[in-house]
Amino acid sequence: MALKVYLSGEIHTDWREQIIEGAKGLEVSFSAPVTDHGASDDCGVAILGAEENKYWHDHKGAMVNAIRTRKGIEDADVVVVRFGDKYKQWNAAFDAGYAAALGKSIIVLSPPEHQHALKEVHAAALAVAEEPHQVAGILTYVLTGKLPA
Amino acid sequence: MALKVYLSGEIHTDWREQIIEGAKGLEVSFSAPVTDHGASDDCGVAILGAEENKYWHDHKGAMVNAIRTRKGIEDADVVVVRFGDKYKQWNAAFDAGYAAALGKSIIVLSPPEHQHALKEVHAAALAVAEEPHQVAGILTYVLTGKLPA
Amino acid sequence: MALKVYLSGEIHTDWREQIIEGAKGLEVSFSAPVTDHGASDDCGVAILGAEENKYWHDHKGAMVNAIRTRKGIEDADVVVVRFGDKYKQWNAAFDAGYAAALGKSIIVLSPPEHQHALKEVHAAALAVAEEPHQVAGILTYVLTGKLPA
Amino acid sequence: MALKVYLSGEIHTDWREQIIEGAKGLEVSFSAPVTDHGASDDCGVAILGAEENKYWHDHKGAMVNAIRTRKGIEDADVVVVRFGDKYKQWNAAFDAGYAAALGKSIIVLSPPEHQHALKEVHAAALAVAEEPHQVAGILTYVLTGKLPA
Amino acid sequence: MALKVYLSGEIHTDWREQIIEGAKGLEVSFSAPVTDHGASDDCGVAILGAEENKYWHDHKGAMVNAIRTRKGIEDADVVVVRFGDKYKQWNAAFDAGYAAALGKSIIVLSPPEHQHALKEVHAAALAVAEEPHQVAGILTYVLTGKLPA
Amino acid sequence: MALKVYLSGEIHTDWREQIIEGAKGLEVSFSAPVTDHGASDDCGVAILGAEENKYWHDHKGAMVNAIRTRKGIEDADVVVVRFGDKYKQWNAAFDAGYAAALGKSIIVLSPPEHQHALKEVHAAALAVAEEPHQVAGILTYVLTGKLPA
Amino acid sequence: MALKVYLSGEIHTDWREQIIEGAKGLEVSFSAPVTDHGASDDCGVAILGAEENKYWHDHKGAMVNAIRTRKGIEDADVVVVRFGDKYKQWNAAFDAGYAAALGKSIIVLSPPEHQHALKEVHAAALAVAEEPHQVAGILTYVLTGKLPA
Amino acid sequence: MALKVYLSGEIHTDWREQIIEGAKGLEVSFSAPVTDHGASDDCGVAILGAEENKYWHDHKGAMVNAIRTRKGIEDADVVVVRFGDKYKQWNAAFDAGYAAALGKSIIVLSPPEHQHALKEVHAAALAVAEEPHQVAGILTYVLTGKLPA
Repeated sequence: MALKVYLSGEIHTDWREQIIEGAKGLEVSFSAPVTDHGASDDCGVAILGAEENKYWHDHKGAMVNAIRTRKGIEDADVVVVRFGDKYKQWNAAFDAGYAAALGKSIIVLSPPEHQHALKEVHAAALAVAEEPHQVAGILTYVLTGKLPA
Repeated sequence: MALKVYLSGEIHTDWREQIIEGAKGLEVSFSAPVTDHGASDDCGVAILGAEENKYWHDHKGAMVNAIRTRKGIEDADVVVVRFGDKYKQWNAAFDAGYAAALGKSIIVLSPPEHQHALKEVHAAALAVAEEPHQVAGILTYVLTGKLPA
Repeated sequence: MALKVYLSGEIHTDWREQIIEGAKGLEVSFSAPVTDHGASDDCGVAILGAEENKYWHDHKGAMVNAIRTRKGIEDADVVVVRFGDKYKQWNAAFDAGYAAALGKSIIVLSPPEHQHALKEVHAAALAVAEEPHQVAGILTYVLTGKLPA
Repeated sequence: MALKVYLSGEIHTDWREQIIEGAKGLEVSFSAPVTDHGASDDCGVAILGAEENKYWHDHKGAMVNAIRTRKGIEDADVVVVRFGDKYKQWNAAFDAGYAAALGKSIIVLSPPEHQHALKEVHAAALAVAEEPHQVAGILTYVLTGKLPA
Repeated sequence: MALKVYLSGEIHTDWREQIIEGAKGLEVSFSAPVTDHGASDDCGVAILGAEENKYWHDHKGAMVNAIRTRKGIEDADVVVVRFGDKYKQWNAAFDAGYAAALGKSIIVLSPPEHQHALKEVHAAALAVAEEPHQVAGILTYVLTGKLPA
Repeated sequence: MALKVYLSGEIHTDWREQIIEGAKGLEVSFSAPVTDHGASDDCGVAILGAEENKYWHDHKGAMVNAIRTRKGIEDADVVVVRFGDKYKQWNAAFDAGYAAALGKSIIVLSPPEHQHALKEVHAAALAVAEEPHQVAGILTYVLTGKLPA
Repeated sequence: MALKVYLSGEIHTDWREQIIEGAKGLEVSFSAPVTDHGASDDCGVAILGAEENKYWHDHKGAMVNAIRTRKGIEDADVVVVRFGDKYKQWNAAFDAGYAAALGKSIIVLSPPEHQHALKEVHAAALAVAEEPHQVAGILTYVLTGKLPA
Repeated sequence: MALKVYLSGEIHTDWREQIIEGAKGLEVSFSAPVTDHGASDDCGVAILGAEENKYWHDHKGAMVNAIRTRKGIEDADVVVVRFGDKYKQWNAAFDAGYAAALGKSIIVLSPPEHQHALKEVHAAALAVAEEPHQVAGILTYVLTGKLPA
């Protein structure tokens, strides 16, 4: 068994790297959104031409990013959705809903203080972790049957 | 043509009533989550038994609410998702993602200051409105071909 | 909102009647398997001709019953699966798996002593109840937003 | 033609090994749940943190195991479901129902004394075997057209 | 519970009328192909213009008939496929395959002498009847739980 | 049997009225896009606010119209796509492709001079008519089995 | 582009070999039912145990063969269905219907004398060929754009 | 992440080559319709036999081409649809509709003068480009996160 895992959400800490490191040696292939904040915001206008209106500037970028995001989620067996400390993070919750409707296995990675606000998202998840090493632990267990020492 | 419309999101203002009023006389049937905040938070434990742990208290409620939410979204032709001024509103974004993956027509109702933070959600919508009367205007046009005077 | 509810599982107690009574006045339409044990066992051979071999006797009946069972589950919004005290009840667990794969909202009605043995089935449910009135309570809440007094 | 086969059910005898041995040399890739009973029961709390309540202890484990189980069944061409002599085995029947709703080819491996109790599960199967070598015989025939000597 | 039943196959005997008569009083709505042989053969050219080539004459008719046939099968809960004594009846077997792939409940109505030739079609059916009253008996049982006297 | 028919394409002649008239008395319910050209072009900005850029002006309108168009096509049993003498009519071809991918029964209504240019669209259709009365003839035949006098 | 092609139908002539030979060098992988008539008829009882009743003898075999047939058709991009001179060949027509409902590209290979009897099957096909080399010609063209010399 | 891209539409300029060149080194596999105009028009009759009637000549070819087109679109992650200066190009708009209904990511490549006529097609796209290098730019960004220099 091999797993395809999509890592959605927060882009300002190294949680993706921690999970990838923790899953070293397993048959897992990871994908993720573009995590370069500037490129992600400007990709639409940089490639397809400038917009005066900020709304359409954002819109063109979000549409281009959707090509990658949808592909990543639709191909995935497992979608990990990370909520961090800052920002609205509605895109993370949106990805979780999208994954849920497709029947993907969802792991939410979120701090305890978000529990109440995330209860509908947690209700769609098969696991709620607080630390990246727990996500790696789940992937390890799912693929090998081994529990953390 | 008749439309089924699910009204997702913020539960602290009368935006649902405004849309329903504005759509009076049209062949539209509306559904929505339970909007009694207290009942919605406690439904799980009130019906199925208390939990000491707050996480499971929330979880049981969110699971019971999902029966209604999923039914509403899955049956809908149009899903209106309202983002207000307060709270995290991750459930609204989750519903938008869920609706998007099911191919529903999505109308987002959100204030201009959320534009950048909602760009991925807006990118999945067929319309982004700022006021409830605009949503009623869309429903009126879609069903009758008439534009607002 | 109106709900279609399929009542699967145990056929030797009056749990179905209790739920139907408890949901009186709600917009719910119930369906269920044939609960006449004898007719259910013999329907295949009674209609299509006797079989010497007991396996095929059972098989013909199970196939005819599947016409009703599948229709009931596939049309349902909510599938309630009841596990009682006796028998293997593999058909109940089978129905739960069938409903889960179709994305139905599942409510399991089971006594506390089955918790460990049913953990995989419970994991696919949105609610686990011990008493029929709790199932009626869920249906009432989902359709009206009212909690039990 | 190559087949993906998921081996669901009983974890206390060597039936999986017998089938895998009997299918040696064929283009078959097998998958299965975690068959270490202890790890399977405790995986949720071992990775995600302890629960005081036994129900949630079980629940967390069952949810984590579902990541593997669903992946295995959804990817499979053929799902073999084994019912043994002991335990309730509702998870096996649940897997059979799940596989049936997805249109998978199902082979049930069960002793003759369970025939009546399993009739609804058998009705969803393309073959009902009593011995592991018969399952290997089916896989051999399906892939090579050769019957057992 | 109400059933939609599509009656496919042979058009030269009164088997449809017998089933409809036998199901009188039940909540069943029946549909069927056009059973006027001449109209069915010529509908394409009669409406859309003559064809010199017999192949295209037949083709235009078969395409127009497919509008009705597909609608009937896709809407049905149960598809009854009748094989009679004469003709190739490949359209009946085609309908059975079409219904099978859509997961419909299939009842085959066929004389014993066709058993071997129909074994693949029978393998996709939930019931194989020899007489129309048996089909009516199944519909009666499925909807009411009553067996024939 | 009752049919839902979506009438897509050209909005400058009375072909829709001719078909509806010709189908009088049949169990057919028709739907169509908004056929008021001006309203259709301006609906986006009229309801949701003006755009300086003509591209986004058009875009907002096309998105709002898509709510109606998708609903009409997705609900339909039969999609009639009309190509007239003027304009690019790419929206008609787009609707045909959309309907084809959903497995809808397609009737194309097009003049003979477009045969070569429409060959890929025709290849996805069950009937190609030149006159509205032929479409009414098909609907009549499909529902009643009667051919035109 | 690579194609998966399932070769369904008649098993008494070398049409499969002719197509495979004609497609040599192309990126095509072929699959087919078991074409050993005796093994195909007896596989059920040979592996799973004898049946006294001929109907169940046939049934067990047809069910085991369905594992291969369904896998072959469901994985295929193109399903070629061959009708020969002899036998009822209802399994071929059944496969065609099954493939049609799954949206597969169908090529029918049939002699001219079957045109009228096969018109409903032909109506679901993208090509109707009379000779195996024509099927190879189609595969060659589809993959390379080259027409026969 | 690797992308499968289908290049639909205009066959008279080298836009496909420009995109393929611009995407050199990326994990992209491209497919396209047969772009030899003569072969594409005549493939049906060249392989399956001549037709006197031009309509059926075209039809046979369009059906054979559909084997390739459908495979290409259904396998694709991204469908690029090019509208050029000449011809009706209804097949391009048809492909866009087909891709849209399947939920594919669509990039339209079209000159500014077609904006109004293409507004419904653009409304289904995630990006609208005017030049092939912009399409290559999107593919580069989606796969690598790098923007054009």
